[in-house]
Formats: sequence, structure tokens, C-alpha cells
Amino acid sequence: MATSAKVTKSESKNNHDAADEQADKEQQELIEQIDEVQNEIDKLNENASEEILKVEQKYNTLRQPFFKKRSDLIARIPNFWVTAFVNHPQVSALLNEDDEEALQFLTKVEVQEFEDIKSGYRINFYFDTNPYFTNDILTKEFHLNDTGDPSSQSTPIKWKEGKDLTKKGSSNKGKKRSHDEQESFFSWFCDHADAGADELGEVIKDDIWPNPLQYYLASEVDEETGGDGGEEELDDEGNFEDEEEPEE
Amino acid sequence: MATSAKVTKSESKNNHDAADEQADKEQQELIEQIDEVQNEIDKLNENASEEILKVEQKYNTLRQPFFKKRSDLIARIPNFWVTAFVNHPQVSALLNEDDEEALQFLTKVEVQEFEDIKSGYRINFYFDTNPYFTNDILTKEFHLNDTGDPSSQSTPIKWKEGKDLTKKGSSNKGKKRSHDEQESFFSWFCDHADAGADELGEVIKDDIWPNPLQYYLASEVDEETGGDGGEEELDDEGNFEDEEEPEE
Repeated sequence: MATSAKVTKSESKNNHDAADEQADKEQQELIEQIDEVQNEIDKLNENASEEILKVEQKYNTLRQPFFKKRSDLIARIPNFWVTAFVNHPQVSALLNEDDEEALQFLTKVEVQEFEDIKSGYRINFYFDTNPYFTNDILTKEFHLNDTGDPSSQSTPIKWKEGKDLTKKGSSNKGKKRSHDEQESFFSWFCDHADAGADELGEVIKDDIWPNPLQYYLASEVDEETGGDGGEEELDDEGNFEDEEEPEE
Repeated sequence: MATSAKVTKSESKNNHDAADEQADKEQQELIEQIDEVQNEIDKLNENASEEILKVEQKYNTLRQPFFKKRSDLIARIPNFWVTAFVNHPQVSALLNEDDEEALQFLTKVEVQEFEDIKSGYRINFYFDTNPYFTNDILTKEFHLNDTGDPSSQSTPIKWKEGKDLTKKGSSNKGKKRSHDEQESFFSWFCDHADAGADELGEVIKDDIWPNPLQYYLASEVDEETGGDGGEEELDDEGNFEDEEEPEE
């Protein structure tokens, strides 16, 4: 009796195992079929990304002559860039008085996205002859390598004697706006510890570079309510309706 | 003498005013020219956005037959969706035991982005006959209106008597994983207070929908180290190298 029961149970178990095995096999086949379909979807996603990249590259090229024209016009307005920076809340928070004095010699800013866009970008800062350093151009580059790790590098600044704004000292007038004593434009420029979350780099690339004029004009709008004819005209064109415009 | 000095000063002031006025006028003209160039750049940006949207729409259409095929295969695997949800850390945190029981009747999930993509998306949940509600399809939609304000709406759930899982009561077995007693799949489904930051909606759309298989398989990989032949094959194809795969 005990043996018979055992056999029955064993047979039942065998049957169950066979059914289980069959179900497992079918399920495994389904999973492999889903995986094949998924591969087709992934291929389409890759193709879509490539096509979108080509559109972005095409328009990057089309925008260049207008960026050039804009830069040439901006260079003729004294203190354009330092004004735009000071009027941007996030950038302003980083600037101390020394920064603002040195940035009065900043005549041109250029943001260049690398050809494949996702791999990084470069910001070129062009300076007039100035009392602080001898470089004409200071460049900071942000890279994503093949494994997606971010890194940055920048031009070594050739400081004139006693003028190194990244060094603490009596000549450093200290922070005007931020509580973090370590922050300044030039310490940001030389800092590569946090390339993956470089807030100022992103702000310049995504916020200021697309439309620096709105930041240059931001303070004037506050100071001269109503403004002159030209500014009213700009208002009418809706250029100050942008959500991202700082409301200081 | 005093008068003479006054006149001189006044003349000087007049000259200075004239020079200032001239400089202001030139600067205003430069600003208007920059604004014109900026308008050209803005137009190019709009054109780029439109072209990219067209590429995205084209590939959305191309993906549809594969999504259909994938859905049909998935429907033949019992508990596919509830398993994928439970294996996703963020979704799992929202599910209580009642949710998991009810979601065993979920046979199909569909994410549909609206034609202009930016304006929102819809998630359709298809259910088998079940003890909880009489609906076949539960749909939650997320909209952005013209001014960019988000809103959401969802199918009213026709709960069977005493089965309303959004009502607190003795039949509610409570949260398994989260400390927030108010959260559950069905309370999320019916909640429209936070449409702009709907975490679960975004996770389903951006994380699970692009590749639900990886979440369905996630637990098997942990439980059966090495796995069977089929799984090893999937491994070889690199499907588990994805950064976003949960490592529980």
C-alpha cells in the first residue's frame, strides 16, 4: 500500500514534471521570440537616434553664420558678456568682484557642440589684453567617453604676477553673492572634479548661449520701466515673454 | 568767473550728453541688429524641432507592428506584466499585495505618445475578467495644454462590490514595501493631483515600455545564476549589460 502510493505519487510527479518542462520550454521559446522582436525595436531606435543626430548636425551648421554675425555685433557692445552673466541668477551667484572686473575684458563667448553632440561640448572665452592673464582664449571642454564617463579639461591660465584669481589672498576681495567661499568663475574654469554635473557649463550652453541678448537686457528692463522705443519694440515682439527670463 | 566756469561746465555737459546720446543710439541699433539675428536663430531652432518631430513620428509608426507583435507574445506568458512591475524597483515600491493580486489579470500594456509627442501620452492597461472590477481597459492619459500646464485623466474604475482597492479597510492588506500608506497602483491610477511629475507614468513610458522583457527576466537572472541555455544566449547578446537594469 505504501509502495503503491509512493509509485502513484512518483508517476504523478513525473507527469507534472513533464508538463512543467513543456510549459517551461514553450515559455522559453516565447521569451526568445520577444527578444527577437525587441532587437528589431532596438534597431529602429538606433536608426531614429542617427536620423535625429543628422538633423541636429545639419541645423548646427546652418546656425553657424548667424552665431558668427551675433558674436561680431556683441563684440561692439562694451561689457556685453559680463552684463549677461551678472544678470543670470545662477551665474551671478558664482561671480565675485574680481571675476566681474576680469570678465569686463571678455569680448566673445563661443559654444561648440562636438560633431556627435552627445560626446560633449567646448566653451571658448575670448579676452582682450587685460591685467590678469596673458591668454587670448580660455577654453573649457566637456567630454563623455565611450563608457559614458564625463571628464573636462581647460586651458592653463597664464596669470600675471600676483594676479592669480584662483589663489586666496588679501588681493582677493571675496565673494559678493555666494556663501561658498571656494566658488568663483576662474576656480570653476580650472576645476575638473565634477565634470558630470558642471552646472555653470550647462547654464552657459543651454541657457545663455541660445539667447544671450535676453540676459544682457534683463537689468535694463527692470531699471527703465517703459524703456525707449527700441526696447518697446523688442517687448512687442514677445522676446521678454520667455519663461526662462530671470525676474530679479 | 563763476559764470564763465558755469558756462564751460554746461558746455562740457552738453557735449558729453551728445556723445552719450550718440553712443546710446549706436548701442540701441546694435541691440536691434542682434535681435534680428537672434530671430533668425530662433527660426532655425523651430525648423529643427519640427524636423526632429517628423523623424520621431516616422519611427513611432515604424515601431507599431513590432509593439503589436511583442504584445501578442507577452499576452501568452502568464503574469508577465505583474512580474515586470514587481522587478522594477520604483514600481515595486508602489505596489501592495492587493495590487499584485489584481495585476495578475493585466494581460497587455500599451503606451501611446500623442501625434505631436510633446503634448502627452496615454497608457492603456488591458485586464482579463477579474474579481476586482468590470472594466476591460483602464486608460490613464497625460496632457500638456497650450500653455504647458500638465493634467491627467483616467477611466473611472467600475469596482465590484467591496473590492475597491483605493478604499481603506480591513480587506486592504496594506503596503508591503513602501512606508507611504496612501500609495498603491490603483490610487496612483485615480490620482490627478500631480500630473506634472507623475513618476510612475514616466517610469512605465520611458523605462519599462522600451524594454519590458529585461524587467520580466530580472528576477530569474538573480534566482538562477547561470540560467539555462536560452538565458545564457540572451546574456551573450548583451541584453543584461544595460545600466538601467535593476540589481536587486
